[in-house]
Amino acid sequence: MTAPFYLPAGDEVDLFRAAYDQRIPVLLKGPTGCGKTRFVEYMAWEIAKQRTGTPPDEPLVTITCHDDLTAADLVGRYLLSAEGTTWLDGPLTRAARTGAICYLDEVVEARKDTTVVLHSLTDHRRTLPLERLGTTVAAHPDFLLVVSYNPGYQVTSKDLKPSTRQRFLAIEFGYPDPELEAEIIAHEAGVPADVAEALAALGARIRNLDAADLLDGPSTRLLVHAGALIGRGVAPRRACDLALVLATSDDRDVQDAVRQVAHAVFAA
Amino acid sequence: MTAPFYLPAGDEVDLFRAAYDQRIPVLLKGPTGCGKTRFVEYMAWEIAKQRTGTPPDEPLVTITCHDDLTAADLVGRYLLSAEGTTWLDGPLTRAARTGAICYLDEVVEARKDTTVVLHSLTDHRRTLPLERLGTTVAAHPDFLLVVSYNPGYQVTSKDLKPSTRQRFLAIEFGYPDPELEAEIIAHEAGVPADVAEALAALGARIRNLDAADLLDGPSTRLLVHAGALIGRGVAPRRACDLALVLATSDDRDVQDAVRQVAHAVFAA
Amino acid sequence: MTAPFYLPAGDEVDLFRAAYDQRIPVLLKGPTGCGKTRFVEYMAWEIAKQRTGTPPDEPLVTITCHDDLTAADLVGRYLLSAEGTTWLDGPLTRAARTGAICYLDEVVEARKDTTVVLHSLTDHRRTLPLERLGTTVAAHPDFLLVVSYNPGYQVTSKDLKPSTRQRFLAIEFGYPDPELEAEIIAHEAGVPADVAEALAALGARIRNLDAADLLDGPSTRLLVHAGALIGRGVAPRRACDLALVLATSDDRDVQDAVRQVAHAVFAA
Amino acid sequence: MTAPFYLPAGDEVDLFRAAYDQRIPVLLKGPTGCGKTRFVEYMAWEIAKQRTGTPPDEPLVTITCHDDLTAADLVGRYLLSAEGTTWLDGPLTRAARTGAICYLDEVVEARKDTTVVLHSLTDHRRTLPLERLGTTVAAHPDFLLVVSYNPGYQVTSKDLKPSTRQRFLAIEFGYPDPELEAEIIAHEAGVPADVAEALAALGARIRNLDAADLLDGPSTRLLVHAGALIGRGVAPRRACDLALVLATSDDRDVQDAVRQVAHAVFAA
Amino acid sequence: MTAPFYLPAGDEVDLFRAAYDQRIPVLLKGPTGCGKTRFVEYMAWEIAKQRTGTPPDEPLVTITCHDDLTAADLVGRYLLSAEGTTWLDGPLTRAARTGAICYLDEVVEARKDTTVVLHSLTDHRRTLPLERLGTTVAAHPDFLLVVSYNPGYQVTSKDLKPSTRQRFLAIEFGYPDPELEAEIIAHEAGVPADVAEALAALGARIRNLDAADLLDGPSTRLLVHAGALIGRGVAPRRACDLALVLATSDDRDVQDAVRQVAHAVFAA
Amino acid sequence: MTAPFYLPAGDEVDLFRAAYDQRIPVLLKGPTGCGKTRFVEYMAWEIAKQRTGTPPDEPLVTITCHDDLTAADLVGRYLLSAEGTTWLDGPLTRAARTGAICYLDEVVEARKDTTVVLHSLTDHRRTLPLERLGTTVAAHPDFLLVVSYNPGYQVTSKDLKPSTRQRFLAIEFGYPDPELEAEIIAHEAGVPADVAEALAALGARIRNLDAADLLDGPSTRLLVHAGALIGRGVAPRRACDLALVLATSDDRDVQDAVRQVAHAVFAA
Repeated sequence: MTAPFYLPAGDEVDLFRAAYDQRIPVLLKGPTGCGKTRFVEYMAWEIAKQRTGTPPDEPLVTITCHDDLTAADLVGRYLLSAEGTTWLDGPLTRAARTGAICYLDEVVEARKDTTVVLHSLTDHRRTLPLERLGTTVAAHPDFLLVVSYNPGYQVTSKDLKPSTRQRFLAIEFGYPDPELEAEIIAHEAGVPADVAEALAALGARIRNLDAADLLDGPSTRLLVHAGALIGRGVAPRRACDLALVLATSDDRDVQDAVRQVAHAVFAA
Repeated sequence: MTAPFYLPAGDEVDLFRAAYDQRIPVLLKGPTGCGKTRFVEYMAWEIAKQRTGTPPDEPLVTITCHDDLTAADLVGRYLLSAEGTTWLDGPLTRAARTGAICYLDEVVEARKDTTVVLHSLTDHRRTLPLERLGTTVAAHPDFLLVVSYNPGYQVTSKDLKPSTRQRFLAIEFGYPDPELEAEIIAHEAGVPADVAEALAALGARIRNLDAADLLDGPSTRLLVHAGALIGRGVAPRRACDLALVLATSDDRDVQDAVRQVAHAVFAA
Repeated sequence: MTAPFYLPAGDEVDLFRAAYDQRIPVLLKGPTGCGKTRFVEYMAWEIAKQRTGTPPDEPLVTITCHDDLTAADLVGRYLLSAEGTTWLDGPLTRAARTGAICYLDEVVEARKDTTVVLHSLTDHRRTLPLERLGTTVAAHPDFLLVVSYNPGYQVTSKDLKPSTRQRFLAIEFGYPDPELEAEIIAHEAGVPADVAEALAALGARIRNLDAADLLDGPSTRLLVHAGALIGRGVAPRRACDLALVLATSDDRDVQDAVRQVAHAVFAA
Repeated sequence: MTAPFYLPAGDEVDLFRAAYDQRIPVLLKGPTGCGKTRFVEYMAWEIAKQRTGTPPDEPLVTITCHDDLTAADLVGRYLLSAEGTTWLDGPLTRAARTGAICYLDEVVEARKDTTVVLHSLTDHRRTLPLERLGTTVAAHPDFLLVVSYNPGYQVTSKDLKPSTRQRFLAIEFGYPDPELEAEIIAHEAGVPADVAEALAALGARIRNLDAADLLDGPSTRLLVHAGALIGRGVAPRRACDLALVLATSDDRDVQDAVRQVAHAVFAA
Repeated sequence: MTAPFYLPAGDEVDLFRAAYDQRIPVLLKGPTGCGKTRFVEYMAWEIAKQRTGTPPDEPLVTITCHDDLTAADLVGRYLLSAEGTTWLDGPLTRAARTGAICYLDEVVEARKDTTVVLHSLTDHRRTLPLERLGTTVAAHPDFLLVVSYNPGYQVTSKDLKPSTRQRFLAIEFGYPDPELEAEIIAHEAGVPADVAEALAALGARIRNLDAADLLDGPSTRLLVHAGALIGRGVAPRRACDLALVLATSDDRDVQDAVRQVAHAVFAA
Repeated sequence: MTAPFYLPAGDEVDLFRAAYDQRIPVLLKGPTGCGKTRFVEYMAWEIAKQRTGTPPDEPLVTITCHDDLTAADLVGRYLLSAEGTTWLDGPLTRAARTGAICYLDEVVEARKDTTVVLHSLTDHRRTLPLERLGTTVAAHPDFLLVVSYNPGYQVTSKDLKPSTRQRFLAIEFGYPDPELEAEIIAHEAGVPADVAEALAALGARIRNLDAADLLDGPSTRLLVHAGALIGRGVAPRRACDLALVLATSDDRDVQDAVRQVAHAVFAA
């Protein structure tokens, strides 16, 4: 595993380190596509590097949460085989046993039964009861649980319960500032600095548009997409059309507003 | 596999090519029956033709999404056999392994758990975790995910989440312009040019009718249907009745309005 | 199989023929009990008669749709047997393989996942993916899909999606005109012409009653029922009570209105 | 099987006979506890007596419908055994094969998928497709379907669809008139004629109370219960309390109204 | 089995006896914790004592109803074993076979399909169809069905259907009068008569409080709890706090009102 | 098992002891993170120490309740193995058999069928029917059921039913007073007394903030988290940001209010 590409935006690396040292679970808050997944990949890689014993084969176990994710999907289940039933650990159990970092992306999308499974792993007990096996797994000393969500488009019915939430330290993420974002775009899309800077500036201007329908301003990822198309010879305005205008909204008014900003940045 | 019949309407072939070269997932937006499925078939055929290694047996894997499509339907499941359980790859896994283009038609119809499965395949990771197998598939370098939907009749409760949507470049489709549409009708229905032109003109006029109940103007497919009936000797007005009037609406007022336009185009 | 009893009411036989020759799927619209099922039986019999190869054992496969009809009910499923699992084709797959006409009665009652399964069978592809088998069935050249519904009592939440609907030619059915209906009643119930004519006239008059609660005027079937009772010696007014008054509504006012018409037609 | 106890209240026996002779399905409408179940038992016994061939072991198959009754509960299902799976006919299939009368009590309680299963058995086809077996059962010539429901407390969301309803002849039932009801009470509860007559009169008076909360007037069964307690030495007023007052409502006002009537009929 | 402790409050023992002698099903109505369960235990013991044949091992079969209780939970189900499937009688079937009293506690909590299963056991048929076995159990002559519910906190959507309800005789229960209740408290909690009397008086006073939020006045059980704590040396006011104040409500105002009454009865 | 760390805040230890001696089930009410789980661990340890016979391997069985917790999850289920099916006791059954204390955390989150399973274990019967095994477990004499919930954020639809609730003695918990809380923080986070005291004072002040959105004041656990970060060298204001500001709310106004209090307590 080579070092994941990650450019720190502030003190998030130190804060995560401090939390990890105390094994306090961490909650990452921030908009979609701002780099939370990359950050966790980077931290897991950093931490695995410094482990004294054998690092786990899989230092990071990522689970994208959704409405239909059951507790069994996390914890494990029996499979029927020719010899009867065999137990298969779920990703959470695997992480707890091997001392990996377990990352639950968009945790509020999970059903209540999923989040409740996390409780005994996130307090002084650090255990995971496998009720269907009739045993309890004590978490490996290196194990840590990390969760994330985007407070921007939460429905209130899908908030974390206080009894779950008050188990985490929260680190807040935002979009990178234009200079840093230009650096990322140049690196990821392989475009010259001036194109990257223009795209980063465009991103910042769109995010400032006061359009209620524009739920999430364009992510860094979308700016990289636009850059990649431009790098392939697509005209900048057309590239913005595909990556920023049509991809962010179906509303014609919002599309026009975004397109106008793009045209102001890139001459025809 | 012979080349699928597809007449480009604009720069969509080049744009798709640019996206494919960067392996950026593509979202096709447009009304029903305007040719999105044919376009993907055409692009998959074009791309397979140019592959250096062995092209996959099945260069395009199409999945029509619906409410009850589970993650297991996409990813795969265990089947019980005499030797215990055997794993059967789902179509998404098959496409990821063989480097096919995987096309999810009407993606917003899918449940959240289905779309979330797509996340790690549509960012820098390009992986598909098969949790029930306990392994992760790295996508074949030629693999690309394409999705489509029709913004015209979305219910807001069924929109894509920003965290899903901001993973795609969007290409917009509309109905072909009358000349192109006439060419398609002539080819598909096997009718003389004047009939095809009359039907194309009729299609354009119906789409302009300001009838709130007429959700989707008649698709090119319906115009081809009308042409096919005329080709079989059905009177043009009666053919329009079956293919355009009764097939598009149950509302008597809307039906009358459509019928009036048809009668204006085709003399009794 | 002897020829099903069917008396054409207009050009529906020719139109169906034209559609079948082009293999364009057909949608039959009309009230309950007006003869749609018989019509399809008749057409399937006619078409099977003229087939050059071996006609299928079962020229018509009928499926009555409902809320709980799953895609697996249509397509097929695995059964567990002593030798592991065996695949059992569903009725749609059976029809597609053998070249039967597949008739989905009351198609709007089906869930979305059921109707979506029909998409690739009803456009230029004419294929049915059997995802759980990992294969795709190419429809037999003689296969055709026919669906029906009753626009009279649709709930809007149960309308066909445009992307489904715009795959069909629509043929509209109504109640037979009194002369034809009398002929049918006489044939089916075995009553003299005057009784059959009186019942047909009664049917027409009840259908014209302006009673909002009377959702579906009495079907031809109910008139046949009344005739059958009269043929067994039940007094005509009492027969109408059972077959037309009590069978069509629980509302006392509607019942009285219907009864009054019956009494006007049949003297005590 | 000895003859079931049933006292005809009108022409219902002849009407049922006429319908049965034509094999037209029958719908019984009437309040709870008015004798519909007994009537069907009696008719099934009468018809079995007159059969020329071997009568079925079980001349009447009764199914009480409810929300969770699945189509499989009616039609049959596979059971897993040591030899793989074995098919077990459901009660409807059993009745159709053996020529029994199949009685679906409170049919509107059933889900839509259940009632739809009845369609092909209740028109000219008289067949029952067993999709999971891949076969179709042709109904025995003696088979008849009978359904019942209580129009008094239907929720409109649970009405029969016209396409189901217009397959039946309807026979209406009410409470027996006081003389007949007294005869029934005397026979069933084993009480002298004067007590039975008092209870029948009481029943009629309570049913006439204009209390909106009193959904279903006391059934004949409840009057029999009261008689049975009186026969065991319980004071008549106390017996009415248990059988008629507390058993019909939780509303104190309704209870008082009913109790007052009871006290007027039975002196302390 | 030793005689269950039960102190009759009125004529309920004789009434139950009369109903049992006629095998008329019984419905017990009354608030929570007023002794319905004990009463049924007592009656089952009394009846088992007087049986001439061998009494059943289990004279009373109790089932606490809830939303998720399925018909199979009552009637029985197949279990998969090495020899294929074995049938396991449910508690209702067991009771019907052995002639036990079957007691369904809080019957309105059950789903409709559960209550419908009871129908043929509670009228002249006294049978239980085991559809999945393909057989019907005739109830043992000693079998009786008893159900209970609390009319105080019914939601109307969870009322018994008239067709179910009108199968039972209803016996009403209330809280015991203070003298009887004091006797019960003294016996159960092992406290001196004066403490028991004070608690019984307190119970009566709290039940008379006009507090809308106080859904169910404290049950006899809670007064016994308070007595038990006092017997263990807990100060009476503190004991009332735990057993009566905090246990009955989360509303601070209701708690204060209850506490005030407790303080009036027990000096500090 | 070493003694769990628990500092009593009042008479809760004696009250629990009194309840346990009488085997009266206990309900713990109080906000999240105030120490209810620790208290039960402590009491289970204390009680196990004093047992005369062999103490159970697992003196405390904890189950965190949630919406999808089924009765089978508590009671047990069959597992399919090569020899057929084997029964696996659930945690509740295990506790009842071995005489452990069974603790249901957040009991109101459980579905009704779960709580109903508790009924016969929490009254004079002290039994647990295992319907699927066809047997009944008599609880071990040392068994006790303890449940908890947080009255602060109950939705009324999720209240305990009176028939469940009136089976428990209730002990109320609050946040520890500042002195005790400082002692806990110092012990758990390993920080000097002055930091612990400042954090305890901060906790008390935030809990007094009149902000409707601040559902649950910060738990002791969050104050310990803040202390742990400070102990790792994170600046106190930044530590409060992560542990108290961002972790308790997504509302910017609430965050500002909390941050202001934190800044007042900790100088920059």
